[in-house]
Amino acid sequence: MRALVLGSAAGGGFPQWNCGCPNCDGVRRGDPRLLARTQDSVAIAPASTGEPGGWTLLNASPDIAAQIQANSALHPRARRDSPIRSIVLTNGDLDHTLGLFSLRESWPLVLYATDAVRQGLEERNAVFRTLRRFPTQVTWKRLELGRPTPLEGEGGAPTGLTVEARPLPGKPPVHLVGVTPPSPEDNVGLWIRDPARGKLVVYATAVSRVDGLQDSFDGADALLLDGTFWSSDELVALGLSRARAEDMAHAPIGGDGGTLAALARVRAKRKIYTHINNSNPILLAGSPEERAVLDAGWEIAHDKMEISV
Amino acid sequence: MRALVLGSAAGGGFPQWNCGCPNCDGVRRGDPRLLARTQDSVAIAPASTGEPGGWTLLNASPDIAAQIQANSALHPRARRDSPIRSIVLTNGDLDHTLGLFSLRESWPLVLYATDAVRQGLEERNAVFRTLRRFPTQVTWKRLELGRPTPLEGEGGAPTGLTVEARPLPGKPPVHLVGVTPPSPEDNVGLWIRDPARGKLVVYATAVSRVDGLQDSFDGADALLLDGTFWSSDELVALGLSRARAEDMAHAPIGGDGGTLAALARVRAKRKIYTHINNSNPILLAGSPEERAVLDAGWEIAHDKMEISV
Repeated sequence: MRALVLGSAAGGGFPQWNCGCPNCDGVRRGDPRLLARTQDSVAIAPASTGEPGGWTLLNASPDIAAQIQANSALHPRARRDSPIRSIVLTNGDLDHTLGLFSLRESWPLVLYATDAVRQGLEERNAVFRTLRRFPTQVTWKRLELGRPTPLEGEGGAPTGLTVEARPLPGKPPVHLVGVTPPSPEDNVGLWIRDPARGKLVVYATAVSRVDGLQDSFDGADALLLDGTFWSSDELVALGLSRARAEDMAHAPIGGDGGTLAALARVRAKRKIYTHINNSNPILLAGSPEERAVLDAGWEIAHDKMEISV
Repeated sequence: MRALVLGSAAGGGFPQWNCGCPNCDGVRRGDPRLLARTQDSVAIAPASTGEPGGWTLLNASPDIAAQIQANSALHPRARRDSPIRSIVLTNGDLDHTLGLFSLRESWPLVLYATDAVRQGLEERNAVFRTLRRFPTQVTWKRLELGRPTPLEGEGGAPTGLTVEARPLPGKPPVHLVGVTPPSPEDNVGLWIRDPARGKLVVYATAVSRVDGLQDSFDGADALLLDGTFWSSDELVALGLSRARAEDMAHAPIGGDGGTLAALARVRAKRKIYTHINNSNPILLAGSPEERAVLDAGWEIAHDKMEISV
């Protein structure tokens, strides 16, 4: 299986438009220790896919047009074409769904989502009608929790990959709080398998607690995990917000209760933090926090990172 | 008055994600005759504004984060800050509004729009609640057709500029066709004035016919006009679509009925085509169509073009 990290930043990207924190200031100034990042999304293809081939996106970020442009494997091969066949949504957050509306130029797409995510998007927003210009423009495939679903490739042919959504502790999107009742379908992680080759990639980029999850991460060839914040009070300490990491449903990396400590013994071949907020000190090469992550055997995702398992 | 062209492409941008036309192929290959462009948006500030100062955006394109990043005048000057004070919307098209949802990180914005555009956006989309996180996050100011409205600057102080919306022949956004009755408020041009200095910028980037408009363009210090298509059958001839320019409510530039001929005698100091579709041959430096435009005294907008009037 191949995975291309299209974007490795949390919502808002890095730098974030209205943020003057030291990291954002530094990356704007061109500090070589800091690398700009677009918002979280990953493209997946089976190992057998030629170049270019049929790709599945995990989430559709607001930066999707620039992400496609930056990755030649996703460029069209004909006058009207895209090697992007389907998109899997892990929740209804705008940083994971807004990009759908940038893929509206008459290209058929298969969207995989839980019923809760589909309803929040399709049934409550007139803008979704832009993806209904012709009957086959969007085909929804329901993600049932805990049940592997085959991923379609080009022309509806099987890719050989399956995706299983599992509920993760999180929260509904800000714009649906108080509108729809919370559901375990609001926020899922993805277990993506190539059964024929015995490969597993786990994508869990929004998770508020990891206690009890270690067993389900064991055996992954690559684990892409929520690396939004280093510490609970990161935004507060920088004067950026009054919200703590947990208020925003992201388990911090560092500290006694952090994911680095909690998952120290997880048996995954590659462990990669992604969905990294602009405020996170692991973005600064050479920082003690970056060192702690790397010394513990984790990697830090960057845009255009290629993962082959 | 100062105007920064943030994006000069039509919806989809240049290159467009799923387009393999000669222009898109060429710009991906790095052909030096072709320049990549993001989607239509302009930033306006009064001449007296220091650097950085208070800016008004005309439309909010899906590429807004990259556009802000590319223009240092729009960078934050403090830990949480933006010199962007307000946004004027000319219609509800997604290539003009989707960027609003990328400005959701707790910064107060003043949005100027007609009632029809506001309603289509605010009342029919749950996602708009992401801009209602605190009571002052979005303040709407109603654009009444034909009536100049003062543009607010930082802290609500007047910028000294006014904006007047005038109805332009066009159409409602694709996602509202059949949902709301057509209205003259669906699609407007903007007449932006600095009355103290006697300056006028006209921004009319979606217009299906220009007959009868010449008088209202006369006297502009800069006219930014719809340059989507060179010819009516451009998309058909390239095999990209069955739609003609007029079906998409954009008057073509070339030919007997085109805007270049129709507006040959318009008295504007600078005449600039923008909102240029990826299929348009004027994008190719040295093409006969580019020469015809330049020889007629028009300019072709590019991203980061600066206009001082």
